[in-house]
Amino acid sequence: MNYPNGNKKNYSKLVNYANRGMNLEELLNDSNAYYLESDKAVIYKKPTPIQIVETKTPNNKLVITKAFFKTPSTLDYNGIYNGKYIDFDAKETMNKTSFPLSNIHEHQLLHMKKVIDHGGISFLIIFMNNLYYYLDGNDIISFINNNERKSIPYKYIQEKGYEIKLQLKPRLDYLKIIDLLYFKEN
Amino acid sequence: MNYPNGNKKNYSKLVNYANRGMNLEELLNDSNAYYLESDKAVIYKKPTPIQIVETKTPNNKLVITKAFFKTPSTLDYNGIYNGKYIDFDAKETMNKTSFPLSNIHEHQLLHMKKVIDHGGISFLIIFMNNLYYYLDGNDIISFINNNERKSIPYKYIQEKGYEIKLQLKPRLDYLKIIDLLYFKEN
Repeated sequence: MNYPNGNKKNYSKLVNYANRGMNLEELLNDSNAYYLESDKAVIYKKPTPIQIVETKTPNNKLVITKAFFKTPSTLDYNGIYNGKYIDFDAKETMNKTSFPLSNIHEHQLLHMKKVIDHGGISFLIIFMNNLYYYLDGNDIISFINNNERKSIPYKYIQEKGYEIKLQLKPRLDYLKIIDLLYFKEN
Repeated sequence: MNYPNGNKKNYSKLVNYANRGMNLEELLNDSNAYYLESDKAVIYKKPTPIQIVETKTPNNKLVITKAFFKTPSTLDYNGIYNGKYIDFDAKETMNKTSFPLSNIHEHQLLHMKKVIDHGGISFLIIFMNNLYYYLDGNDIISFINNNERKSIPYKYIQEKGYEIKLQLKPRLDYLKIIDLLYFKEN
């Protein structure tokens, strides 16, 4: 989740010099804008869900004056690529040896499973040890079904996941991994 | 668009006694919840996009104290049904003879076209003359390409669209129309 004044975002700006100050969310928004422009895919980040408590209309302009962040029950990004429904989330961890599953809400895991069951593609993009990984939803669900652990070892992410190298356009070409996994014959 | 204190919503509550006080957005959220529960489809309304200007943390709880509504560049609802990407919006008009195209932003029309081009299904659900209609994106784009008019005549909606009758579960079974149009062989 990306709270506008949260610490995670600012911290990642400090540690990740390689991406020139762009955090994971910005890199993905930039990549999605590139995919849209080049007519490769139509994928957007969903707005942050908030609960509006109070609004005012000074000078005839509607202003929200009290609202709270809500916990999302779906993943942050979705859209369409090559006729397929795409649904994913971006996660960062400072942990070096494992990815804590507390980063994913139970509702989000259930959503991921449902998307796959209905014929969509779901995954996480994980920023960890200063590297970007694509980890497919099937591998996440398989890990959870076969382990009691509350975190996914980094070794599992290295083995099952796919590193996405930072580049210029698009910054994180995650659709290349989807081509590899889901459209190999093309 | 559904501004929390907009007039449209309250007005539709007054005129549309038949749906027992539920406006179009509530009817669709209810239908989507039913589809989700019965494992028929995974479709959600996107949160309203807002621009957060100011937050505070009284008693250690993060509160948004100043924010504005933003104009959405996509449609409000999306998800997956039967392996297909679904993307649509809900619109109400008090106009009896035609549906003003000013109800749809130019960005939203472009988005609709892109979704269809990439193999998805896009449409509008229109509440007009106290009736609910499914109007397919292809018919909307075809109308715009072949007409100079700034509104779609009600006759066109009656001819090309499909009426969705209010019922108990789901309240508005719009997937039935998609079955008819896109999964006829089943």
